[in-house]
Amino acid sequence: MKERLTIVKVGGAVVEDPSRLDGLLDRFAAIAGRRLLVHGGGRAATQLASRMGIATTMVEGRRVTDAEMLDVVTMVYGGLVNKRIVAQLEARGVKALGLTGADMDIIRSHRRPAVGLKAADGRPTGQTVDYGFVGDVDRADGQALHGLIERGVTPVVAPLTHDGRGTLLNTNADTMAQTVATALAPLYDVTLVFAFEKPGVLARPDDESSVIASITADSFSRLKADGVVSGGMVPKIENALSAVAQGVGRVVITSADSIADTDRGTTISEQ
Amino acid sequence: MKERLTIVKVGGAVVEDPSRLDGLLDRFAAIAGRRLLVHGGGRAATQLASRMGIATTMVEGRRVTDAEMLDVVTMVYGGLVNKRIVAQLEARGVKALGLTGADMDIIRSHRRPAVGLKAADGRPTGQTVDYGFVGDVDRADGQALHGLIERGVTPVVAPLTHDGRGTLLNTNADTMAQTVATALAPLYDVTLVFAFEKPGVLARPDDESSVIASITADSFSRLKADGVVSGGMVPKIENALSAVAQGVGRVVITSADSIADTDRGTTISEQ
Repeated sequence: MKERLTIVKVGGAVVEDPSRLDGLLDRFAAIAGRRLLVHGGGRAATQLASRMGIATTMVEGRRVTDAEMLDVVTMVYGGLVNKRIVAQLEARGVKALGLTGADMDIIRSHRRPAVGLKAADGRPTGQTVDYGFVGDVDRADGQALHGLIERGVTPVVAPLTHDGRGTLLNTNADTMAQTVATALAPLYDVTLVFAFEKPGVLARPDDESSVIASITADSFSRLKADGVVSGGMVPKIENALSAVAQGVGRVVITSADSIADTDRGTTISEQ
Repeated sequence: MKERLTIVKVGGAVVEDPSRLDGLLDRFAAIAGRRLLVHGGGRAATQLASRMGIATTMVEGRRVTDAEMLDVVTMVYGGLVNKRIVAQLEARGVKALGLTGADMDIIRSHRRPAVGLKAADGRPTGQTVDYGFVGDVDRADGQALHGLIERGVTPVVAPLTHDGRGTLLNTNADTMAQTVATALAPLYDVTLVFAFEKPGVLARPDDESSVIASITADSFSRLKADGVVSGGMVPKIENALSAVAQGVGRVVITSADSIADTDRGTTISEQ
């Protein structure tokens, strides 16, 4: 039987709120057995950029990462956020190791090519957007992570990858979590928890008691068509479904307050 | 017989010059056998601070690290410089892993207490200076580094430590290198190379052909008394002598261009 591994992905809104992050790290440190944390960066990168006089450009909700912005996210995600979490986990007795995808070549990616923009009706506008130094993942090295975890190490993964030719790339944290979970699924019985500021996927956005207990590929299509699920929740659920389809045992979208009690959030399953 | 381990410490002036850093990393990647790199940060931290509108205060050549400056050095040393080097070593086929002292609790330190300032004649001035979030090293975990190195990993160490209670601390990179070398000396036949922009310790500051081939504890006292060695070179040689006294096999201060040919620099030995 495979050992159990809990992977928690914690988003920017939790990371940037010290008391929330504190609570999340308490609960994460209390998880029994093998663990891995993936974190986002959130507005800290935008704030630093602004303080440095660098404008942040978002297209369709995604950050355009030019060379200066790549330095900013490398500093904030790979440095400030990652090392603060590592130091705070160490203070809780967790043998934490901060990693980007470049470290030990754990996650290799390629720079995303310029893509065509679509209008609201789905038709191409003829315009393209170059997201810059953004990496789409090619492969993750589950064996290297396994080697660390079996030495008692808890990896803390920042949302940065590299192209193998010396360039760092900015990669979505949900995608990082799904990639890592999938690479480790042959080696562990993996539970992947997407922890964020809501108690789960909500049927009614303003009603926190309206958590949808379970979503499958089929019900996701309907929820999208009905407009119940939209915006940033769409790629999050797509990442979760992708993890499930690739052998991750259990995927849950839930509150950062409930990572130890995954029955309370939204479970994502194939059918 | 112990395996050979080469530890290279590269200073800020090399790190911040892309073509110099490129050459250094080429030579580092070509070193046969086990390797470890410790890097400084240099003026990049001062530049970022200035761009963020944070004033840099230096007292007796040392940076005062208040809470904002701690964030700056965490971003620059732990993020930007460290992850760039890791990505560039990966591009050279080196399985590099970026680390601070907080990661895996590798280097624990305590915050330096406020110290009394002395006048030029050595007498106390009655004034004290609090260097802020600066860490003086308590211990390094050679076994943890050994475990990584024996898995084929090349650690890349940034000049940051932690106090074990969740706080990162800014620590001098030469001290980091000496600490790591000393902790690994019982496990390896260690060569520690302090690589910087000069070909070695110079008898005449402006004459690069005046490299002092060898310095011992005794000759260091004379060189200091005669004013041949002064400024930042004093703590560098003190760190080197401390490493030698604690069992590091060979310590050399040399040019970043000569790390593979350590006969060309200044060798530091006990007597």
